[in-house]
Amino acid sequence: PILQESANLVSQWIEEMSEGRMKITVYAGGELIPALEGFEAVSQGVAEMGHGASYYWAGKAAATQFFSSVPFGMNAQQMMAWIYSGGGLELWEELYAPFNLVPMPVGNTGFQMGGWFNKEINTAEDIQGLKMRIPGLGGKVISKAGGSAILSPLGEIYTNLERGVIDATEWIGPYHDHLMGFYKAADYYYYPGWHEPATVTELMINKSAFDGLPTYLQNIIRTAAARSTHWVLSEFDAKNNEYLQKLVNEENVKLRRFPDSVLTTLRGYSTEVIEELIETDAPSKKVYESFAAFRKKVGGWTDLGEKIYYSGALG
Amino acid sequence: PILQESANLVSQWIEEMSEGRMKITVYAGGELIPALEGFEAVSQGVAEMGHGASYYWAGKAAATQFFSSVPFGMNAQQMMAWIYSGGGLELWEELYAPFNLVPMPVGNTGFQMGGWFNKEINTAEDIQGLKMRIPGLGGKVISKAGGSAILSPLGEIYTNLERGVIDATEWIGPYHDHLMGFYKAADYYYYPGWHEPATVTELMINKSAFDGLPTYLQNIIRTAAARSTHWVLSEFDAKNNEYLQKLVNEENVKLRRFPDSVLTTLRGYSTEVIEELIETDAPSKKVYESFAAFRKKVGGWTDLGEKIYYSGALG
Repeated sequence: PILQESANLVSQWIEEMSEGRMKITVYAGGELIPALEGFEAVSQGVAEMGHGASYYWAGKAAATQFFSSVPFGMNAQQMMAWIYSGGGLELWEELYAPFNLVPMPVGNTGFQMGGWFNKEINTAEDIQGLKMRIPGLGGKVISKAGGSAILSPLGEIYTNLERGVIDATEWIGPYHDHLMGFYKAADYYYYPGWHEPATVTELMINKSAFDGLPTYLQNIIRTAAARSTHWVLSEFDAKNNEYLQKLVNEENVKLRRFPDSVLTTLRGYSTEVIEELIETDAPSKKVYESFAAFRKKVGGWTDLGEKIYYSGALG
Repeated sequence: PILQESANLVSQWIEEMSEGRMKITVYAGGELIPALEGFEAVSQGVAEMGHGASYYWAGKAAATQFFSSVPFGMNAQQMMAWIYSGGGLELWEELYAPFNLVPMPVGNTGFQMGGWFNKEINTAEDIQGLKMRIPGLGGKVISKAGGSAILSPLGEIYTNLERGVIDATEWIGPYHDHLMGFYKAADYYYYPGWHEPATVTELMINKSAFDGLPTYLQNIIRTAAARSTHWVLSEFDAKNNEYLQKLVNEENVKLRRFPDSVLTTLRGYSTEVIEELIETDAPSKKVYESFAAFRKKVGGWTDLGEKIYYSGALG
């Protein structure tokens, strides 16, 4: 709902700020074009704008994955600092330009949950043989751990989980997951979302169309997208705990934390997955090097405040 | 520099998005009106907009302090979630309306530093007799701890510190503090900034002027302010570590963490300061109750992701 609202709000803000000179019609996934084909459609001008997450386009350019969320990567505040002020956006634009696309962030889900499981995960061995719906780099990590990463279209996840076609699924966080009803099909709800510590959603625009716009409209679009980025993160933070409480108290969901040993194993596989990717794909190497360098730098700073805050010393 | 740039950028974005139909001239503090008199000036229409931080207006309405930063209060992400999605902005608007003002967030500095000291702070007793430049609720806390909270205009802080008129000062963070040259006048640089875990800067607008604007211009202003909020936080996160390294490696600043025992004592005094305030001022009570309730709720959520992230389990 928040992500759909974000698309609607951005359209509304653009229309209002331009006094109706730019009107955007929002179509749901599958309504205008098949789900997960937005990149191609906007690239070719079938639609002039698309609202999604860049890891869905890994098949077009593997480096896209670094602009959505990276397993064991940066959290929301650090990720946005990289994109807006650390050179991330420029690399993203460079990557998309050959596809005739202009990307920009339009939301951030914040930390996601680790997912719904039909059994407890006490050791890394419990992932062996597990069939889990999980996309992107996180899915490759699950495969390395001996599980199977499966991609189901949104509409099929619940049924697949209920029928045992999959043993586990991740989605977003308590608010959206509650609405998907996953608690009716799996007992255990795991955190933290190691695979998506901060997922950036994207607005992608047909570059020929964008370049042809007057400057004031380009600015209106950029500014509306930035407002939405902020709004989405705030909405998730405001609503997730409320729905987490509903899940735990009203639906008797068993909330579980991944043991540190499991996280350590998954982190090792994540490093391998990323190393294999950047060894074989030059754009991924370039983007990841910027990501990693910025992370190290920003971490030196956030350790002096945010880290102490969460340690309880400032609680 | 970031805060001045924010004022300039917001003006530029508004002018660009409105195709020049709204032009804003930015004056530095003291240029058009005396520093720290923005609230009164915008209220009366001497200027139509002001860029500042709401705790400077505590003398006009004490509750303003909760919309900038609260000692031992929420961090940046939680604070913005409260303001944008947890009812904070509505309370802020309600508080400012009788003064003929419309407020909105326009930046967030993120965690600040604890300040510059000419001696080490090893126990809470070391604060006794200390003369420190520190505004707002944080200043009241220093007074409770036996120190003196002094307010110097920006231009006098450095000289006062160098001449021993004050023994300590806080300002913002490494980037801005480096430019102020405080490292030449004090040896110890303390963290974390318990008194300002996330300082929101504000855009305040003369309400009669704002209400008279066409909807599209009101929207352009709101959207530009939201874009700036995000941009400011990202810029601070991107630049602070770079300047922290300069201070430590090039200027030989002694970086120190406040001992947990000192933080615990200051936290106790912060609770007292807030309790005394809300007992005597009804608007402060109303605002703080919303702040505290939201904090508890959002903390239940961020504990499942951000907190684990900073614990190192996800590092």
